[in-house]
Amino acid sequence: MNEFTGTCVALSGGVGGAKLALGLSRILAPAQLDVIVNTGDDFEHLGLTICPDLDTLTYTLAGLNNTETGWGRAGETWTFMASLRALGGESWFQLGDGDLAIHVERTRRLAAGEPLSRVTAELTARLEIELSVIPMSDDPVRTFVETAAGALAFQHYFVRDQCAPEVTGFEFRGAKTATPSPMALGALADPALDAVVICPSNPFISIDPILAVPGLRGAIEDAAAPVIAVSPIVGGKAIKGPTAKMMVELGVTQSAASVARHYDGLIDGFVLDSEDAASGDEIRALGLDVLTTNTVMQSLEDRVSLAADVLEFATKLRSKSK
Amino acid sequence: MNEFTGTCVALSGGVGGAKLALGLSRILAPAQLDVIVNTGDDFEHLGLTICPDLDTLTYTLAGLNNTETGWGRAGETWTFMASLRALGGESWFQLGDGDLAIHVERTRRLAAGEPLSRVTAELTARLEIELSVIPMSDDPVRTFVETAAGALAFQHYFVRDQCAPEVTGFEFRGAKTATPSPMALGALADPALDAVVICPSNPFISIDPILAVPGLRGAIEDAAAPVIAVSPIVGGKAIKGPTAKMMVELGVTQSAASVARHYDGLIDGFVLDSEDAASGDEIRALGLDVLTTNTVMQSLEDRVSLAADVLEFATKLRSKSK
Repeated sequence: MNEFTGTCVALSGGVGGAKLALGLSRILAPAQLDVIVNTGDDFEHLGLTICPDLDTLTYTLAGLNNTETGWGRAGETWTFMASLRALGGESWFQLGDGDLAIHVERTRRLAAGEPLSRVTAELTARLEIELSVIPMSDDPVRTFVETAAGALAFQHYFVRDQCAPEVTGFEFRGAKTATPSPMALGALADPALDAVVICPSNPFISIDPILAVPGLRGAIEDAAAPVIAVSPIVGGKAIKGPTAKMMVELGVTQSAASVARHYDGLIDGFVLDSEDAASGDEIRALGLDVLTTNTVMQSLEDRVSLAADVLEFATKLRSKSK
Repeated sequence: MNEFTGTCVALSGGVGGAKLALGLSRILAPAQLDVIVNTGDDFEHLGLTICPDLDTLTYTLAGLNNTETGWGRAGETWTFMASLRALGGESWFQLGDGDLAIHVERTRRLAAGEPLSRVTAELTARLEIELSVIPMSDDPVRTFVETAAGALAFQHYFVRDQCAPEVTGFEFRGAKTATPSPMALGALADPALDAVVICPSNPFISIDPILAVPGLRGAIEDAAAPVIAVSPIVGGKAIKGPTAKMMVELGVTQSAASVARHYDGLIDGFVLDSEDAASGDEIRALGLDVLTTNTVMQSLEDRVSLAADVLEFATKLRSKSK
């Protein structure tokens, strides 16, 4: 089944990215796959450092994720939150009892001076995840959403205010001075690299923070392997989250083609949903190769199938460029 | 029922002290009762500041305590611990999901610069506890148990090593430079003070740390009210915990009289269990008044009954000294 013999680097945010990363992990050997993860969503809450995208990816790859809610852990209990509310603590961000352990343990280890990448590597290894889950940087980068009402810390915008404020832009605080993860740079410079996959995550708040870390965008541009983005927009709507709403507010057409244009100059190929086949020409006009397939991942089979399609597309683009 | 019109200060450790404090709280109005609590058992664990005696008292007074285990909260869940173990975290100290909330919220507030006394006052108020639960000091005091194998942090001795190491002494680190709680000093200097009650807590590790905070022992000695200790030893055995075992290791007779002797110079009266009535003369020989009654608190009625006996004893001692 796996005719793909090189390595693959995936760029991922949370839920959508984790789905495709899971699909890729079912096809590729652990040593063939590295996932570079957005940490712009990370925040400090109740004294804990919470890394939502890293955790969604970790729980998904470990099979611990809650498939009903789409976030958090399966079999979760909520005694902590009930107790915290009774004590008058801040309760707008839901922290499940089982989920708390990764935040407490990570915070303890960060406070002891361990870099986030090492903490992540060791915690994922404990959960028997063999592939590399790589935070984009060990330095804190914090996404702020610029709105008419001022800049909001990402989780305040996303969870507390439920994406209601109108978005005018984004700021990735700390990005300019952040050092890119050496593991991420290493994976992108690997001579065996045969594909860079931008997962169907929100381009503005999940992928752009990764690209904003000095050196990472350049390393992707310099990679010999084809760079492929998978559309997070299907039929003009976002599968999940505020991507489409943000496009409207930013004055961009709500379409898969807008995502392709957003990544123009960085990507070689674009994966479009069958529902958006009509947009293919518009994207090809940007000089991009286009693969049209089913990108909606409801079942595990969908995830593996899309991953296989993406890897096959990468192989085709590589042979073409030779 | 309540003929006691003045105020009462109780000195308390964890479980045994909390039982008597609960009994006192059922007789006295909230403004009549202040409980000064040992913080020598406090420790930093997983990045959290945990205050076991404060929490036992808080849960007991709020009716949230687990009466089956004698520690922790009723209706507790344990998802956090299971998750933490899977991540390879330190799991020798059991932290229930509901219990975690008070540690997380307190740690957050202490890190923000709030003193422990204010944090405690506000958290207990949230749980509708009207009387004052007063940490002996806002400064950290940490009990170390001296053993043949070296000094052990209290919770390492008590929980991790289950009191197995032989005790040679105690050190209350930080006590010498700790500032006593102004609320504690205020309560002890209150002209309306009519009783100081040393709860049936471990004298060495629950009460001595309180007395080691500069100014607190003197304030008790200077109080016009009678000072009464309730024996934690019944029939030569400790109701709970390592008190009796420690006595053997410290070369002290395992008896209620030894506790009375331990407090010699500080107390005016001693409350002895009926089972130990024969020790009455030995204690009276120290110049102390003795009340012999049932001190074993199994039911709520037992707690209230002992509290009533102690308050009546205090009234008797006061009238005697006039």
